[in-house]
Amino acid sequence: MTAPDLNVDHLFDGLIHGDRLSLARSITLVESRKNQDRIVAIQLMTLVDKHLQQCAKNMPSDQTLAGWTMAITGPPGVGKSTFIDKLGVQLVELGHRVAVLAIDPSSVRSGGSILGDKTRMHQLASRDEAYIRPSPSGSTHGGTSAATKEAIDLCLAAGYDTVLVETVGVGQNEIAVSDLVDWTLLLLMGRSGDDLQGIKRGIVEAADMVLVNKADSEGYEPALETQRYYQSALSLFPPHSLPGWKVPCLAISSVQEYGWENFWSTLKDLKALPELPDWIKNKRANQRVSSFQRMLNQALLEHWSSSQSRRTYLDLESDLRTGQISPSQAVWDRLKDWGLKE
Amino acid sequence: MTAPDLNVDHLFDGLIHGDRLSLARSITLVESRKNQDRIVAIQLMTLVDKHLQQCAKNMPSDQTLAGWTMAITGPPGVGKSTFIDKLGVQLVELGHRVAVLAIDPSSVRSGGSILGDKTRMHQLASRDEAYIRPSPSGSTHGGTSAATKEAIDLCLAAGYDTVLVETVGVGQNEIAVSDLVDWTLLLLMGRSGDDLQGIKRGIVEAADMVLVNKADSEGYEPALETQRYYQSALSLFPPHSLPGWKVPCLAISSVQEYGWENFWSTLKDLKALPELPDWIKNKRANQRVSSFQRMLNQALLEHWSSSQSRRTYLDLESDLRTGQISPSQAVWDRLKDWGLKE
Repeated sequence: MTAPDLNVDHLFDGLIHGDRLSLARSITLVESRKNQDRIVAIQLMTLVDKHLQQCAKNMPSDQTLAGWTMAITGPPGVGKSTFIDKLGVQLVELGHRVAVLAIDPSSVRSGGSILGDKTRMHQLASRDEAYIRPSPSGSTHGGTSAATKEAIDLCLAAGYDTVLVETVGVGQNEIAVSDLVDWTLLLLMGRSGDDLQGIKRGIVEAADMVLVNKADSEGYEPALETQRYYQSALSLFPPHSLPGWKVPCLAISSVQEYGWENFWSTLKDLKALPELPDWIKNKRANQRVSSFQRMLNQALLEHWSSSQSRRTYLDLESDLRTGQISPSQAVWDRLKDWGLKE
Repeated sequence: MTAPDLNVDHLFDGLIHGDRLSLARSITLVESRKNQDRIVAIQLMTLVDKHLQQCAKNMPSDQTLAGWTMAITGPPGVGKSTFIDKLGVQLVELGHRVAVLAIDPSSVRSGGSILGDKTRMHQLASRDEAYIRPSPSGSTHGGTSAATKEAIDLCLAAGYDTVLVETVGVGQNEIAVSDLVDWTLLLLMGRSGDDLQGIKRGIVEAADMVLVNKADSEGYEPALETQRYYQSALSLFPPHSLPGWKVPCLAISSVQEYGWENFWSTLKDLKALPELPDWIKNKRANQRVSSFQRMLNQALLEHWSSSQSRRTYLDLESDLRTGQISPSQAVWDRLKDWGLKE
C-alpha cells in the first residue's frame, strides 16, 4: 500500500462507520514502515484521536470505562486463543463489540493468515460483532510496537468497545503491553514453573489479574494447586497501584464452565472500586505521553535512516555495542547532523 | 558551575588520576541541566568512554568482570545504608576500591548533605579506598536518570572498581536501575508484605538476588520466615536470563555476621558460571545502546525547550494528558518545528 492510493478522509469515514475493510486497511497503514505511509498514518491518527476524545466527552459519566482494552499475555501453549475465543463470545453475548489483535508468533509459525487466526478462534470469528486481526507480518517475536497502540485506537474508533490484545510477551525490544492497554491478564497453566521459559521476567508483576488455564479433566488438580501457589506468592509482591485491588489468581477452564462465574464476579468487584475511573483516566493520560515519546523517537530514527548519505541506525547500534563509538559521542554527532549544534 | 570555569582536559586528567575533587566536579557537571554544561559534559564523557574502553582492552581476559557495578534497591527503612556500609568495608578489605552513589530520597529528607550520607555509612566513609556521593540535588524521588549512568562511568574512570548504587526505586519516570548496572540486589525485611508500599511493581522480578535484611536479635525469626516464603515464590517466576542462575533469597544481618558467609559463597558461585562473562558483555552492550537513545531524547528535549518561542515540553505533556492534542499531532508538529517535515 502506498500513500497515493489512499484518501484519508474517505478511509476515516469508512472506519468510524464500522466498515471492516476500512479498519483492515487502516491497521495495515499504521503498521507500514514506509515514510509516505507514515505521513498518511499520522493524518489518520490525528482524526481518530479527535474522534475518540469526542466520544469520551459525549459518554455519560458512569460510562467512563467504555472502550475497555485488555492484554491477554502468557507463555506459548497456555491456550490464549481458546481462552479469548470463549471470553470474546461471552462479551458479545453481554452486548459488546469485540476486536482481537493477535500478536502471538505461534500464529505466524502455523501460517499466520487471517484464516489461520479465525480458525484458532472459530466461535468468535463467526460472530458479526467481532473482528479478529492476526499478527502484523513484520512481527515474528510476539512483541508489541508503537503501531499496536494505534491499531487498538483504530478498533475503538471503528466501534469495537472491547479490544483484546493477545501477546506472548517475549520480544526483545517490545514495548511493555501493559503500557498500551487498560488491563493486563496473565494466563498460566497448572505447574507452570518450567513453562515460563517463553516469557520475560517482569511479566508476572505487570499482570493485573492472573488466570491458571486448563482447569478441566486431567488439568484440573494441577491448575488448582498452581492457583494456590501463585495466590500466595502474589501477596508477597509490591501492592497494585489501584487502591483496594489485590491481584487475584483464579483457576479457569477455556473449554468448560469452570471458573467463569468467579471470573465475572471478580471483574464486577473491580468495576465497583471507587478509585477505578480515576486510575484508568490517569493510566490513559500517562499512555498518551509515552505514546508521543515513542512515536517521536521512531519518527526521528526513520527520518535519519532515510537520509542515504548518513550511516544507518543499525550500523551505529552495532558500533555502540562493540564500543567503537561512545553513547555521548554518538549523541553529539546526531545533533550536529541535524543542525542542532555548531 | 558554568562551562567557562572548566577545562575539560584538566578535569579529565584529574579524574583518571583518582582526584576526588575532580570526580565530584565531574558528577556535578553531568547532573547539570544547563545547556552549556551539557556540551562540556558530552565532551568529558567522550573522553571517559574512550578511557574505559581502553582499560577493558588492556585487562587480562579472566578479569572481564573488573568494574563490577551493583544496584542496592529496596523500600525505605529496610536498612540499605547500613548494609552498604558493611558490604563496602568488606569489599575494601578484599582489595577493592568502592564508590557509592546514594539516590535514596530519605537521605534528602534527613539533610541530604555529603556529611549526612557519610554519617549514614560511617565505617565506609572513613576508608581512603571508598568514595561516597549523596543524592543529586534535583532528584527528590529516589529515581535514576540518564546522569546516573554517567556518574557510574565517572567513578569507574576514577579507579573505583566496584560501584554501588543505592536507590529506593519509586520514581515515577525513573530509568529502571537494572538498566544501568551489572547486577541488582533487592533488600527486604522480615514480614515484608505490607512494607513494600514504597516500591514499584516489577522491582522484585528485576532483582538478580534478594536479601532479607535485619536477620539479627528480634528480627532473626521473621527474616528467616520471609526468606523461606520468597525463595519459594521466586521459583514460580520466569527464569533469569543468565543460564544456570536461579535468583537466590538469603537472610542476612547488616550489624552482625549472620548470612555473610552464605552471601560471599553465593557470589562466588555466580562468578564461576561459565556464561557470566558473555551475559555481562551482552548486558553492557545493550546498555550502551539504550544509553544513547535516552541521551539523544534528553538532548532533543533540552534543545527544544531552550527555544523560547516554542511551547515547552511540560505544557505539551499537560495537553497530551488532557487530550487537547493527540500524540500523532504532537509528533507532526515537532517534526515541522525541527524542519524535518514540509
